[in-house]
Parts: sequence; structure tokens; C-alpha cells
Amino acid sequence: MSKIIGVLGGMGPEATADLFAKIIHATPAISDQEHLRIIIDNNPQIPDRTAAIMGQGPNPLPLLVDTANNLVRAGAEFLIMPCHTAHYYYEELQKNCPVPILNMIEESVRQACEAISLLHRIGLLASRGTIIAGLYDGIFNKRGVEVLTPRGEQLEQIMEVIYGVKEGRPRGELKPLWRPVVDDLLQRNIQALILGCTELPLVIDAAEIAVPVLDPTNILAQRAVEYARNNEG
Amino acid sequence: MSKIIGVLGGMGPEATADLFAKIIHATPAISDQEHLRIIIDNNPQIPDRTAAIMGQGPNPLPLLVDTANNLVRAGAEFLIMPCHTAHYYYEELQKNCPVPILNMIEESVRQACEAISLLHRIGLLASRGTIIAGLYDGIFNKRGVEVLTPRGEQLEQIMEVIYGVKEGRPRGELKPLWRPVVDDLLQRNIQALILGCTELPLVIDAAEIAVPVLDPTNILAQRAVEYARNNEG
Repeated sequence: MSKIIGVLGGMGPEATADLFAKIIHATPAISDQEHLRIIIDNNPQIPDRTAAIMGQGPNPLPLLVDTANNLVRAGAEFLIMPCHTAHYYYEELQKNCPVPILNMIEESVRQACEAISLLHRIGLLASRGTIIAGLYDGIFNKRGVEVLTPRGEQLEQIMEVIYGVKEGRPRGELKPLWRPVVDDLLQRNIQALILGCTELPLVIDAAEIAVPVLDPTNILAQRAVEYARNNEG
Repeated sequence: MSKIIGVLGGMGPEATADLFAKIIHATPAISDQEHLRIIIDNNPQIPDRTAAIMGQGPNPLPLLVDTANNLVRAGAEFLIMPCHTAHYYYEELQKNCPVPILNMIEESVRQACEAISLLHRIGLLASRGTIIAGLYDGIFNKRGVEVLTPRGEQLEQIMEVIYGVKEGRPRGELKPLWRPVVDDLLQRNIQALILGCTELPLVIDAAEIAVPVLDPTNILAQRAVEYARNNEG
């Protein structure tokens, strides 16, 4: 029996739907019955993570814990959370949840280091909360990888892209915002780019970027399928 | 407070993901927090509905009832079920579930009659189970609408399209199967076409068909958003 996947979602809804679709596509199956059972709690009322980290909004941890435990009660045997910034609360959440939570950031760093030989400098696009909290820096630095992030005003532009997706703004309108930020990172000689906010793979097309682009939503989806099917842990 | 939507899913997974995306797009929201809470139990182990109706497979009702009640325990205040053929069990399921279940087939018939003036002849593409059980015919006939379905071998071709989506076959490969069936229905003077299996909107592009095409997944998504927000029932 495969393990039942729980998705702690809603941060945002479109990113949750993207993860769901990526899990389905990552599953080797030729009939409904061969697919995995996935329970999703899409709970968009979880407070904004960046606002909380900046001290400008309510703490999302209590609702993260409630939602995680709701998934466990519904049968989820391990959890995944398609929001990088929410991983700021990862350790506290795991302490208050009886089943394992796969860590999207750790999985993505591991995948980046495995996929790109001699990786020493990576670009990161992410929310202000993820960047200020250094969620990626800590783990990449331990592996000797330098993380370059958008400079000055450019972080504002990425925040506008992220919240633009949440608002449902047309993708074409958002491209002039992210494209110059990516170009600036490319000029700073990044070897790869990581889309460190789950809204970003919804708008940024890897095919248009001259270095390898890592999509942590897809990395997490593949890892979840592997974990569920191997019945690890 | 909006009502919490429960999605009794997994029949198949891609159709469930399609409904999820359509609910998100149907929700008027410009931030995560304005979106609706949606709990999805994607349970693909529910036995094949057409096989059961044909007497060739196990009864899916017990697992439908279990999954519905799991959603209710997780907080769902009403349910929707993105599988037409599963609506064969609608009444028994509703009897064994303490919250309302919106009926996708009734909603679709109502929408068809409202959207198309003087509707008297509609084409239906659906699974063998849905067609043999007459799930659409009964309700349309009460409203004086004749339902035309694929003839002879053509139902086999539609079944191949439906199970082709479940298998993950490329869309382009499936078009030569459904296109002649649609053309035959058009020659029989249908005024509109209803995609009466949730796999079909994933492959059939309404823009390529000369009559109005109804997508019940989208109709159900819009109705669920309205029901959740109006806090009806």
C-alpha cells in the first residue's frame, strides 16, 4: 500500500493546484486506481507569511498546526506544504504534527546540488519573507553554495509578480517585472536559478532562461510520489 | 463566513485537479485570504463506475460513502463530485452523508436549458455507464429535451478517449477518436453538446465545435462558489 499524501495548501490556491497537477503527472499510472490518494486542505485563510515574518501581521503558525492536524485526522500519512515562506515555521510545525513533513527547501537544495555539477553560485527568486529569513541561504551555504538574490528595488518587483499571481493578473503583464530581475542575476554569473516561491513557476517559463531553472514545486511533487510509493519512513 | 467545499475526487485525478482549478478561477478574490477553503479527498481507489454499472466490477458505493464522510469529518459543509458516472449512486450516497451534495447532472441540465433558448435536442458525450443508466436522459426528457448519444462503435471511441486521458495518452492522439463522433452528432442537428464525462473537457476544445459546448466541470465549479459564498442551505 502506498502512503496517503496530505497537502497543507491554500498558500496560495493556484500554487496548490499546480502541486496537485504535478503529483498526478509524476505518478506512474495508467488507470485511476493506480494513482495515489491525496488529501488536500486548501486553507487560504492562513495569514500571510511574509507579513508575519516582517512583524506586520498575525502569526500563521496556529492555523498551520490546525490544518496539518486536520489532514492527519483525515488519513494523511505524511505532509507536504507548497509554500516556501511557510517553511519559516517548519520546525515548530513538525513538533506539533504527528506525521513527517517533507521539507521543500531541503529537497530543492539537495536536488540543485545533485543536478548541477560543481555548483557554487545560484540565483534565488523568492518572497521578501523567505529571503529575509534566509531560508535557502542557511542550507545552501552549508554546502558551499553562494545564494544571489534580487537587489534593491528588484525584490519589490518580484513581490509584485508573486502577489500579481495571487490577484489573478494576466501573465503577460507580469513578465516585464520579472524578466529584468532574472537578467540582472544572469549578469552576476549564476549557474542556475531557483524559483523559490510557489507562485513563480506559474508565470516564469524555464525555456526562456539561459541557465538551468529549478522548480521546487515539481521537485516536491516527485519526492512525494517517491516517498508515498516506497512507503518510506 | 463562506461554507467549506468538499471535493469527493479521484475519479479521475486529472478531472479532480481540473475542477479545483476551475473553482479557483470562478472565485472573485484578489488575495489568498479571499479564496474559499476547499478540502479534497482524491481517492482514486474508488472502483470503476462504468464497470460496476455493467455488472463487471465491484460496487463503488461503500468507498464513495466512506470518502464523503471523511470529507465531512474534515470540515466540509457540502460536497461536489467531479464524476458523472458516480452520480448513478447519487441518491444512496446523499442518504448516507449528513451534508448536501450538489448534483452535477441536475446543475448542468438546468444551465443548458437556461443558456440555450428553445432547447429541444442536445448531444451528449459520456461514458457507457452514464449513457446506459440514462443519467442525463431522465432529467432532460422531463424538460422536453431529446438527448442524442454516440451511435454503435462510436461509443467505444469515446470510451477510448476517456480511458486515454486516465492513461495519460497525448491529447493529439485522442482527437482523431472524438472528432468524427462530434461531427456525426452535429449532422444529427444537435443544438448544443454536453461533455458529460469529466475527462472530456481536458481534451475537447469547445472553440473547435460549431455549436455551444457545455462543460459540466465548469458549471459545477461556478455553482459551488456561488453556494459557498451565499452560504445557502
